[in-house]
Amino acid sequence: MDLHIDFAAGEPRRDAIYRQIRSAVLDGRLRAGAALPPTRELAARLAVSRNTVSAAYDRLTAEGFLAGRVGSGTFVRDGLSGSDFDRPPAGSAVEPVEVWDRLPEQPRGFAPPPEFDFRTGVPDLGMFPFDTWRRLVAQQLRVSNADILTYVEPGGHPPLREAIARQAGVSRNVRTDPADVLVTSGTQQALDLIARVLLRPGETAAVEDPGYPPPRLVFTGFGARVAGVPVDAEGIVVDAIPPGTRLVYVTPSHQFPLGIAMSMRRRMELIAWAERQDAVIVEDDYDTEFRFTGRPMEPLHSLDGAGRVIYVGSFSKVLYPALRLGYLIAPPSLRSALRKAKYLTDWHSPGPAQAALARFLDEGAFARHVRKMRREYRARHELVTESLKLDFADVLTPVPCSAGLHLSAIGECGTPGLVRAARASGVFLYRLGGFSEREDVRPGLVFGYGAIRPERIRLGLRRLRVVLDEGTWR
Amino acid sequence: MDLHIDFAAGEPRRDAIYRQIRSAVLDGRLRAGAALPPTRELAARLAVSRNTVSAAYDRLTAEGFLAGRVGSGTFVRDGLSGSDFDRPPAGSAVEPVEVWDRLPEQPRGFAPPPEFDFRTGVPDLGMFPFDTWRRLVAQQLRVSNADILTYVEPGGHPPLREAIARQAGVSRNVRTDPADVLVTSGTQQALDLIARVLLRPGETAAVEDPGYPPPRLVFTGFGARVAGVPVDAEGIVVDAIPPGTRLVYVTPSHQFPLGIAMSMRRRMELIAWAERQDAVIVEDDYDTEFRFTGRPMEPLHSLDGAGRVIYVGSFSKVLYPALRLGYLIAPPSLRSALRKAKYLTDWHSPGPAQAALARFLDEGAFARHVRKMRREYRARHELVTESLKLDFADVLTPVPCSAGLHLSAIGECGTPGLVRAARASGVFLYRLGGFSEREDVRPGLVFGYGAIRPERIRLGLRRLRVVLDEGTWR
Repeated sequence: MDLHIDFAAGEPRRDAIYRQIRSAVLDGRLRAGAALPPTRELAARLAVSRNTVSAAYDRLTAEGFLAGRVGSGTFVRDGLSGSDFDRPPAGSAVEPVEVWDRLPEQPRGFAPPPEFDFRTGVPDLGMFPFDTWRRLVAQQLRVSNADILTYVEPGGHPPLREAIARQAGVSRNVRTDPADVLVTSGTQQALDLIARVLLRPGETAAVEDPGYPPPRLVFTGFGARVAGVPVDAEGIVVDAIPPGTRLVYVTPSHQFPLGIAMSMRRRMELIAWAERQDAVIVEDDYDTEFRFTGRPMEPLHSLDGAGRVIYVGSFSKVLYPALRLGYLIAPPSLRSALRKAKYLTDWHSPGPAQAALARFLDEGAFARHVRKMRREYRARHELVTESLKLDFADVLTPVPCSAGLHLSAIGECGTPGLVRAARASGVFLYRLGGFSEREDVRPGLVFGYGAIRPERIRLGLRRLRVVLDEGTWR
Repeated sequence: MDLHIDFAAGEPRRDAIYRQIRSAVLDGRLRAGAALPPTRELAARLAVSRNTVSAAYDRLTAEGFLAGRVGSGTFVRDGLSGSDFDRPPAGSAVEPVEVWDRLPEQPRGFAPPPEFDFRTGVPDLGMFPFDTWRRLVAQQLRVSNADILTYVEPGGHPPLREAIARQAGVSRNVRTDPADVLVTSGTQQALDLIARVLLRPGETAAVEDPGYPPPRLVFTGFGARVAGVPVDAEGIVVDAIPPGTRLVYVTPSHQFPLGIAMSMRRRMELIAWAERQDAVIVEDDYDTEFRFTGRPMEPLHSLDGAGRVIYVGSFSKVLYPALRLGYLIAPPSLRSALRKAKYLTDWHSPGPAQAALARFLDEGAFARHVRKMRREYRARHELVTESLKLDFADVLTPVPCSAGLHLSAIGECGTPGLVRAARASGVFLYRLGGFSEREDVRPGLVFGYGAIRPERIRLGLRRLRVVLDEGTWR
């Protein structure tokens, strides 16, 4: 019998023999009843010890691939050859719970990146102090830091929780006990934990429309009914939130995607509404580190006396998105449940990254980078605004906005057709309607400027104007 | 009026003025109706520009703290002083969903570490090649790696998925398309995603008893009824799994905490059971990289022809737990739902760590470290086994075990009292009963040896013997 065995570097010979005989049985090269060479003979042929061959045969016998007959050697057993139990499972047997069929596939990656990248929510990595960050991360990856390398508290590495509490207090007047800060794997996980702890299947959760899509999906995933609530020039229309809503998700500092700030009057209305309805407000403050005029409005969190606001922050926009670190600051009545939920979800966020981020905040590197980027993004913001006023005044009206990494503009041209044509010409941008489930949402475009340098902004907008004027997208 | 304003380094003066007046209003130092100093006067006193003071006053007026009366200056508005809306929320208003009250608080941290650390599941960090790992991580933290710094595919960084598929194929004969590998934030998240995608509230999930506690908690958190199923010398007692069970969680390679391997016969029984019951098997292969004898049994995954087994692996035991990277390999019928669930949970696991781990696997550093640690843990395993046979033969009988980072021993002395007394004497170990919810579980002790060096093992076991003989724990 021609039993061919290859030895590859790194694989023990016993394992190679085992594996290759096994494969030969399963794919039918060795038929049921076929006799294997005696161990002595195969050992000699392969130039290995007889024990090596015996060990492989023993294992194959123990696992039911071979059978030994006294006095007549070793044979391939019946009923195995050609069976498919060694192939990757075909996998039609198990089906997920229905809700997962209803949810859309996740967005695709961007490879290669677009020529003119007006995506929202992507910061300029080229200006990030990677030298500092590398140093801080490398410092953590030492055996002397056993506390952050084994298991960390589910609520987060304590020095990071303290740094976040300080940072939120100084920059946003969000006052909290560090014990109520929960370090999350980004805003996405903060939303997930909040939904998990607060929403029962069938309850109503409200989101802004147009709005940031993930909360809608997260709440749907937990079996909630999700209501899209219109947004006007002052923010979410509180009167339009359906009665009985348990939880409302808002972006008051810099509405996504419109870019407006919620008025103080609307803030007070929303808090009074939550009080009346016994509801919870999730305040996502995702990019207000980058505020270009001097008046950040009070966050809902600090206007709330009763403990109905959960404040959510992210480090994705100041550091980089794939860091996957963010936080939530919740009322003490949710502290225990949120920590338990975090523990069950993924135990805790990675220890070394948490410790490095605490240092980044404590050493002032975070504040320095925010100051630098605030100037930079302000310049880009002004450049986009000016360009829109100069070159697109006939078709687009910018929405007032004074913070963040994107702005939007209203105009009938904000159609799927235009966005497709622009992308085909290398100009990647979103339209307002893509963030809405309502028929009557105002058409418009969204210009992210975090990932595109000023000179590219000019060129990209010029290219967009060309696409617009060609009119083939209509 | 004595309005005291401090300027601290780093805070813009306008903000300092704003913040301190605001606090004075809210804590009652500035009463309703009190007149503020004219901007010119305060500017002169503080040696700042009048614009700075005006900006602070304007903001306070816009936010409703101050009011201007024509001709009579700026005053504190009514109805604010002494209100508590600026304090951290008291937080009694919002209550979590009931299930979170039923779940236990998460385990506490270990600070300082125990003198003799026989915990399970903690590897020896002192032997990990942190130099190599630091280099690989630092290589990722460069702007040229934009693809892993912005947003990564929810399923995982493709080179890591490929490396995992290769690794699982070579070392465990788990054959899979890399597209069916999902990178998770540790085993904990793998369990969470599986439960989320497969379990409906009220359905039954089965776990081994004694067993690893987190799956029980995760399944409970999703509203499942959890059945503990006894384990005998061959593994989980398949006949004791309740009818109608949707999902069963098992540790066939190295049962946690008993340490036995599931017999081949029992494996086939379990697969046949899943087929009959239309159920899913979760196979957690958490530490079988460290196998000390030459015959790893076929994993359930490769014995399964129908796609009913989800294979779960972890990097916590080879690298370090706070890395929070693991994976699951699921049947193709779950691919889409699991990716969606991962996306909604935390979008994706951190990019740079995924890329560094892919390199660690591809460069062979992983395999080298496993080989080194296999020798080391084998020596510790033998040392504990020998010590138990020599010094504890009268009270403990080791459970046969040939892999992993812990072993267990049966004996009447495995009581809460002994474990408490041992911990009080610096010997931290677990008892079998702590991993069980059944009354009739056999008493015994569990000895983890990942975090304790051989010389400390000897001393620790000697100390344990002294505690045992003192008898005060009875």
